Amino acid sequence: MSKIIGSSLPNIPWVDKPENYKMPIWRYPQNPIIGRDAIECSNSVFNSAVVPFKDGYAGVFRCDSKSVSMDLFPGFSKDGIHWEINEKPVTFLGEDKEILKREYRYDPRVCFVEDRYYITWCNGYHGPTIGVGYTFDFKTFYQLENAFLPYNRNGVLFPRKINGYYGLLSRPSDTGHTPFGDIFYSRSKDLEYWGHHRHVMAPIREDASAWQSTKVGPGPIPIETEEGWLLIYHGVINTCNGFVYRVGCALLDIDEPWKVKCRSKYYVLAPYEYYECVGDVPNVVFPCAALTDADTGRIALYYGCADTVTGLAFTTVNDLMDYMKKYPL
Amino acid sequence: MSKIIGSSLPNIPWVDKPENYKMPIWRYPQNPIIGRDAIECSNSVFNSAVVPFKDGYAGVFRCDSKSVSMDLFPGFSKDGIHWEINEKPVTFLGEDKEILKREYRYDPRVCFVEDRYYITWCNGYHGPTIGVGYTFDFKTFYQLENAFLPYNRNGVLFPRKINGYYGLLSRPSDTGHTPFGDIFYSRSKDLEYWGHHRHVMAPIREDASAWQSTKVGPGPIPIETEEGWLLIYHGVINTCNGFVYRVGCALLDIDEPWKVKCRSKYYVLAPYEYYECVGDVPNVVFPCAALTDADTGRIALYYGCADTVTGLAFTTVNDLMDYMKKYPL
Amino acid sequence: MSKIIGSSLPNIPWVDKPENYKMPIWRYPQNPIIGRDAIECSNSVFNSAVVPFKDGYAGVFRCDSKSVSMDLFPGFSKDGIHWEINEKPVTFLGEDKEILKREYRYDPRVCFVEDRYYITWCNGYHGPTIGVGYTFDFKTFYQLENAFLPYNRNGVLFPRKINGYYGLLSRPSDTGHTPFGDIFYSRSKDLEYWGHHRHVMAPIREDASAWQSTKVGPGPIPIETEEGWLLIYHGVINTCNGFVYRVGCALLDIDEPWKVKCRSKYYVLAPYEYYECVGDVPNVVFPCAALTDADTGRIALYYGCADTVTGLAFTTVNDLMDYMKKYPL
Amino acid sequence: MSKIIGSSLPNIPWVDKPENYKMPIWRYPQNPIIGRDAIECSNSVFNSAVVPFKDGYAGVFRCDSKSVSMDLFPGFSKDGIHWEINEKPVTFLGEDKEILKREYRYDPRVCFVEDRYYITWCNGYHGPTIGVGYTFDFKTFYQLENAFLPYNRNGVLFPRKINGYYGLLSRPSDTGHTPFGDIFYSRSKDLEYWGHHRHVMAPIREDASAWQSTKVGPGPIPIETEEGWLLIYHGVINTCNGFVYRVGCALLDIDEPWKVKCRSKYYVLAPYEYYECVGDVPNVVFPCAALTDADTGRIALYYGCADTVTGLAFTTVNDLMDYMKKYPL
Amino acid sequence: MSKIIGSSLPNIPWVDKPENYKMPIWRYPQNPIIGRDAIECSNSVFNSAVVPFKDGYAGVFRCDSKSVSMDLFPGFSKDGIHWEINEKPVTFLGEDKEILKREYRYDPRVCFVEDRYYITWCNGYHGPTIGVGYTFDFKTFYQLENAFLPYNRNGVLFPRKINGYYGLLSRPSDTGHTPFGDIFYSRSKDLEYWGHHRHVMAPIREDASAWQSTKVGPGPIPIETEEGWLLIYHGVINTCNGFVYRVGCALLDIDEPWKVKCRSKYYVLAPYEYYECVGDVPNVVFPCAALTDADTGRIALYYGCADTVTGLAFTTVNDLMDYMKKYPL
Amino acid sequence: MSKIIGSSLPNIPWVDKPENYKMPIWRYPQNPIIGRDAIECSNSVFNSAVVPFKDGYAGVFRCDSKSVSMDLFPGFSKDGIHWEINEKPVTFLGEDKEILKREYRYDPRVCFVEDRYYITWCNGYHGPTIGVGYTFDFKTFYQLENAFLPYNRNGVLFPRKINGYYGLLSRPSDTGHTPFGDIFYSRSKDLEYWGHHRHVMAPIREDASAWQSTKVGPGPIPIETEEGWLLIYHGVINTCNGFVYRVGCALLDIDEPWKVKCRSKYYVLAPYEYYECVGDVPNVVFPCAALTDADTGRIALYYGCADTVTGLAFTTVNDLMDYMKKYPL
Repeated sequence: MSKIIGSSLPNIPWVDKPENYKMPIWRYPQNPIIGRDAIECSNSVFNSAVVPFKDGYAGVFRCDSKSVSMDLFPGFSKDGIHWEINEKPVTFLGEDKEILKREYRYDPRVCFVEDRYYITWCNGYHGPTIGVGYTFDFKTFYQLENAFLPYNRNGVLFPRKINGYYGLLSRPSDTGHTPFGDIFYSRSKDLEYWGHHRHVMAPIREDASAWQSTKVGPGPIPIETEEGWLLIYHGVINTCNGFVYRVGCALLDIDEPWKVKCRSKYYVLAPYEYYECVGDVPNVVFPCAALTDADTGRIALYYGCADTVTGLAFTTVNDLMDYMKKYPL
Repeated sequence: MSKIIGSSLPNIPWVDKPENYKMPIWRYPQNPIIGRDAIECSNSVFNSAVVPFKDGYAGVFRCDSKSVSMDLFPGFSKDGIHWEINEKPVTFLGEDKEILKREYRYDPRVCFVEDRYYITWCNGYHGPTIGVGYTFDFKTFYQLENAFLPYNRNGVLFPRKINGYYGLLSRPSDTGHTPFGDIFYSRSKDLEYWGHHRHVMAPIREDASAWQSTKVGPGPIPIETEEGWLLIYHGVINTCNGFVYRVGCALLDIDEPWKVKCRSKYYVLAPYEYYECVGDVPNVVFPCAALTDADTGRIALYYGCADTVTGLAFTTVNDLMDYMKKYPL
Repeated sequence: MSKIIGSSLPNIPWVDKPENYKMPIWRYPQNPIIGRDAIECSNSVFNSAVVPFKDGYAGVFRCDSKSVSMDLFPGFSKDGIHWEINEKPVTFLGEDKEILKREYRYDPRVCFVEDRYYITWCNGYHGPTIGVGYTFDFKTFYQLENAFLPYNRNGVLFPRKINGYYGLLSRPSDTGHTPFGDIFYSRSKDLEYWGHHRHVMAPIREDASAWQSTKVGPGPIPIETEEGWLLIYHGVINTCNGFVYRVGCALLDIDEPWKVKCRSKYYVLAPYEYYECVGDVPNVVFPCAALTDADTGRIALYYGCADTVTGLAFTTVNDLMDYMKKYPL
Repeated sequence: MSKIIGSSLPNIPWVDKPENYKMPIWRYPQNPIIGRDAIECSNSVFNSAVVPFKDGYAGVFRCDSKSVSMDLFPGFSKDGIHWEINEKPVTFLGEDKEILKREYRYDPRVCFVEDRYYITWCNGYHGPTIGVGYTFDFKTFYQLENAFLPYNRNGVLFPRKINGYYGLLSRPSDTGHTPFGDIFYSRSKDLEYWGHHRHVMAPIREDASAWQSTKVGPGPIPIETEEGWLLIYHGVINTCNGFVYRVGCALLDIDEPWKVKCRSKYYVLAPYEYYECVGDVPNVVFPCAALTDADTGRIALYYGCADTVTGLAFTTVNDLMDYMKKYPL
Repeated sequence: MSKIIGSSLPNIPWVDKPENYKMPIWRYPQNPIIGRDAIECSNSVFNSAVVPFKDGYAGVFRCDSKSVSMDLFPGFSKDGIHWEINEKPVTFLGEDKEILKREYRYDPRVCFVEDRYYITWCNGYHGPTIGVGYTFDFKTFYQLENAFLPYNRNGVLFPRKINGYYGLLSRPSDTGHTPFGDIFYSRSKDLEYWGHHRHVMAPIREDASAWQSTKVGPGPIPIETEEGWLLIYHGVINTCNGFVYRVGCALLDIDEPWKVKCRSKYYVLAPYEYYECVGDVPNVVFPCAALTDADTGRIALYYGCADTVTGLAFTTVNDLMDYMKKYPL
Repeated sequence: MSKIIGSSLPNIPWVDKPENYKMPIWRYPQNPIIGRDAIECSNSVFNSAVVPFKDGYAGVFRCDSKSVSMDLFPGFSKDGIHWEINEKPVTFLGEDKEILKREYRYDPRVCFVEDRYYITWCNGYHGPTIGVGYTFDFKTFYQLENAFLPYNRNGVLFPRKINGYYGLLSRPSDTGHTPFGDIFYSRSKDLEYWGHHRHVMAPIREDASAWQSTKVGPGPIPIETEEGWLLIYHGVINTCNGFVYRVGCALLDIDEPWKVKCRSKYYVLAPYEYYECVGDVPNVVFPCAALTDADTGRIALYYGCADTVTGLAFTTVNDLMDYMKKYPL
């Protein structure tokens, strides 16, 4: 039995696993929980980052507007399922105008560390890189320096310092629809200067696990367990008709998170449903956030569907660990 | 209040805007109005060009046969919604066999100017270029010289001479699935010799209006209004899983139509419905014709869906103008 | 009236052609007959090869696992519609470990010649090539030498020797999502050494039959008729949003099967249904097997749908012959 | 014996053909006649257009500056071999600022028709197209409307009206290093409105004449002969290490110049010498101008070498005609 | 000390190794020995195949004509250095017109086995494949069946049967400037039916031996030595400015030649000289033939230079073996 | 008059500017100063980094071996012109084996800061990134953490701390022959953790300065002057036959070096000479080091030529400043 190290979350959104269901992750039956037109200006709402907040939930959402401009929007929910998203995007405060200048913002993650909620996202600064900011209340947001040079996507913080350092996973990229991508780990004393970059994992180029043969990138904030950090990540294959984004998981060493202790050979979630297969970018499930309840091991997974809407799915730490060990790479 | 300059069309196909509907264009509920098998040989019927004709409507339709050969077919309708399309393609008459020789024909537009219905289309002549022809009765068709050298697509005539010249919008291209495209204006005294080419508008390469970042091309015959020519056009973005075609609008100067007075930042129609997202070419809405009623400002928009079927949608000149001004580029 | 030369198959799966149906092939109404999760580990089950076996049917199925590893699995059915597929892939016996070493296996065909069932498939050996094996009972399988050097796909045997030689159709390719492809014929005395390679047919690069403009490849085992070999094949067009795979047919000379006597200009099956248009690879119908009944001329066609599930469709030798002659290339 | 129809040019630059030389064109021994640093700011001087002018010669030269900005520069010579090129580029006068605005200019041709020297060149106007201008004295230059919509290169006028129309050859292209290209003919009454576009010739895609398998484009002003228009053109092959530009010739019908009466299978000039094989773009010979002497049939050919320097070569109308007929396509 | 197993060739072309020369292969000082204009129609003469013949030498040469048509030409020499090449290409005799029909022919090898000279070459048959023919006298040539299906290049026979089979190395490819390529071994009883295909060696994708990171292909007929078959092969790297072709060597098992016993990490010949670096395809040395003298271990290596001219270089079996062992992969 | 801030270097290699020479940089007449075979194993020696050391000079050289393996080699010279390069590559000492593991190393720069010589280079660590190390004596070398995540090239340190931080210029890239590239500035307190990334300059995509239209990257260590940091950098254009690398210069703000005060429109050095135009990668001049003498303003520039040999050229701070100001961007 695996155990999550973390807080209780008794009101975690939850639906029991359907009987005889064989996959380790099962969907919320009323998916998508957030439609493409959740706010007036939106073309699509997906790749969302949610956290427990006060007696409910808050989040930062990627809403592409009807100009297909990409930006971050705060949102709030009582139950984690029904969301109110602000009509106005996040405005960041900060000292250096050079950094505050917005080119585009997408694919946020939110991570509570110590006393505040950190947001990391893909931030346009002469190319995509990892933006970093924080908020205490999801009303006022502060922006820090970009973590890295371009070109990079999918910056994912660890929920506590490791050996005295903030830890950050990311996927260096190129300027376009990158046809490659490994996961790397970086660390920082101050969230401003980063170093000690370590390779975590690469695509599996061969038949053994072809769903992750083109690129892999980190998904939600890693989940601390007694066995290590449970990482849910996306993997991509390049078919003759485009990329297919699926979801896998891995177990990272608790002190040296760049060391992979176990990694799923089988995907744990893939585009099966209409809203995952049909949309602005067909065949995409893209996980960006997970709520966890340490008491029960329950995990509620939020994921973008076809770059158009937001889905919710459920699993437990045991389901993922067992599946990963049953079908190891 | 904007006003269309043109004829009354009391029997224009029409459905009122659904309550609380926020987009400026709304669909005909029984879409698609023309299925892929509208005629026996057809694989798909889309990108259609319709005009008022006698007490009803006539049109020229792109039907790709079950050999996926692209040709133009005349069709007729009493109400603009239910169409009878000929089983035989258009045969053009003319003097020069070099020009009459058919390679392929697609994406027609029909434009009534002065005394006859002109047809322009993408015409294969050692590469795609703009074919020009006319008919009085949609039975006998005459072909003129190609307007331009290859490679070009989407030739769209203005419905009256401007300062004594016929005007023609088009989108120069390359020989394949062109990854670029601007709209240009050309003029002619005689529909045979063209010149005075002027740039009208380019894609918006940045986040500000990314739905039109790869290419833009003219759609239906421009609609004359008191404020200028209302142009409905298509815009394309290149995702990792292919092109998405959407619809926008712009206002062109009445005397110098290459001068853009206003242009929509937000798209006005995009692939949302199954028949727009799924088909031979997923995620395409492609407008080719608009009926207008000057009395009411109503516009009935015909558009190809997923390169497979034909859809119908409704708007008014005010809806488009207001939306364009509310979200200007 | 065309006539199949072959065995009776009174229990061939069958549904009569719907009234007024105009295409030469019609689908089984309860398609797909095999879902993507037919076995526990499968992501998708498609491109299947079935034959009459004992008093029912047996087959070899391409099941991509949830790691998207491609392998061959035996399966059995009483009626050709409801299938039990083994949870374990085929294991081949043979003498040379170099040949038995599995890289990946996909797109099998099964062909009964003389005394046994031969299996041919796309076999990974430093690149894709044509693997050859046989079984008597679909329990024990023996692997022979690969027929060709890489790079090749779609090896399809003839069901009897022709002029004393085994005959094999194939589609030479490259290492990736090959954007070209012709059908070739090769022959062998012993199924080990192949030669006398002859070109059979090329894509039609022009508008005349654009659905087969990018590549063509052989499908099910050719069907012997009084007029020649009836070949059902796949053809591919490259759209701006990816490849579309459709189905055509041709008539090959009975003694010199590289000579094409007739070839369909129109496709005979194309992606129309949801399960053909939506899936891991949208817009694919890919035929790999056909059951035939010489008494009635009936043909039951098995085909992969969207690289995800397996469909069944029906036709007769007369339907195909007539359609091919009505719309000749 | 072929005969040039045109003026005498007794002082045409000339060197006799070396003994036993077997190719129809031979080089000036002191090539290149214009070095890359002919003017102070130049990186390269090539693809030059020269004509007889007063008692010597004048020309318009493509000089790429040391910023690799492409522009046109007037130049003068007494003997056609030693040239003085102005340090300042051509400034065009004209009425419409939209047309006069310079993006870039390159690959000029100069053609005397009736009373003035017309210049055509590749003109940047939201993409490359054919600019048109004229001068009487190579001091004051006037710019007319662009002949065509983008994208086009290599506009080459005929030296007299044909059936009352100005004639213009060109090579439609795309926006980059175009991997295709045919020659087309267009005509105009007024040099402003162009039409009656006719295909002249395409690349030879096969082994028969592979040096011209990728694209072909017109070179110098066509030379009128008793047998038709003698066209010297460039042809390109795409090797694994880039394009190789060579030179061929063709004979066009005197009244319908889009009809090719004869065309060389063998090239007549190719990169052999160091200054043709080594430079900013290796392996390019690119002909842009030819002086002719009707009395002797002599032709002095000016051509760009490796996109870096200017070469001079010699031939006669008989040499070219004989070679073309000896090795016909 | 390594020893060649084979005939004496006392009059082998030879120049001693320059003093202090450190590379294992040294050039003939008067290179190139055959210029691009060796025959009247030739654009280039390279990739040549020579053998001892009577009291001198004969060969089959790739001459690209001045139409850049690729064909094979017989040639003769007394000393192996000065060559007379026929002005007319080889004409093959044979029974099946389908096979005799010439599309294009290039990169020949000549191999004496038992009683005749076999020629193998890249033969156009609906794509490049390996043509096979033979001659007794270099006057009359007979063509056999193509060895393989397309797409393949560089067919190289072994000079004797191995375990009763003819052996053939080749490099399967695609239809263009193939960016991949491994060497395979095939065998045949009768030179008509081929099988038992075995992988020999792949490119080295990493820094360890990057000169051969894109593709490798067999060069001259393998040289039998006491230690195994000495294979001289070409290797290619893809730079930002194109492919560079270099030369390496390997030692293959004498009975199972698909087993590589040793392989050079360092190249043994690379483009250094002007005629190797500059030409129609810069930076190519491409070995196609080797003369050997068993008495002295001398090897005279013929190689194409820049796809333009023919070079000659010298080495010994010891030089190659020692170098290969000194810098093993 | 501009003035270098730095040390005297009376024995700087030097040749006076040729009379009437108009470019701001002139070559050493006996170039290349280091040949491709400077050490026994080398295929090429280029992109070299040299500094004053003791009474002469030392450097770290990129030598690609004859396996085309890329590594760093120490070298020494008395006069800066004649160099002895070690036969063995640099071995780095350090604590973490993960970092010390060599994949490949190339394009070094050497920079003296405070008390030691820092080396930065392109270091393979699951993709190219910026390696950092130091030496006191060019005998013992210590390696630090990589500065950045992959993918990055051309790490160039500033020769003193700026506002208390080490400064580092670099060019983020992709995994291959990157077709884009901007220069960025990063800073660090400890050479281990880097942040405060600022954009410095981008390519000039248009005709105005097309030689630097594809990518730009920093060259030698910036030279401190009274007006700011003088940066010599490389710029690249993409022609139809590959990249051409040229050299430009810019003036950066002394305290905020990401602010560009002036930038050359014209290149200051470009491939003109044989050894710059012909070699393993034609048409490359790539500057990596500069010696300076504060007394005279002299600069000796070391640059790689055609990725094959090393060239030396001369200029002065005034020559560069004047030229940059005369032709500003």
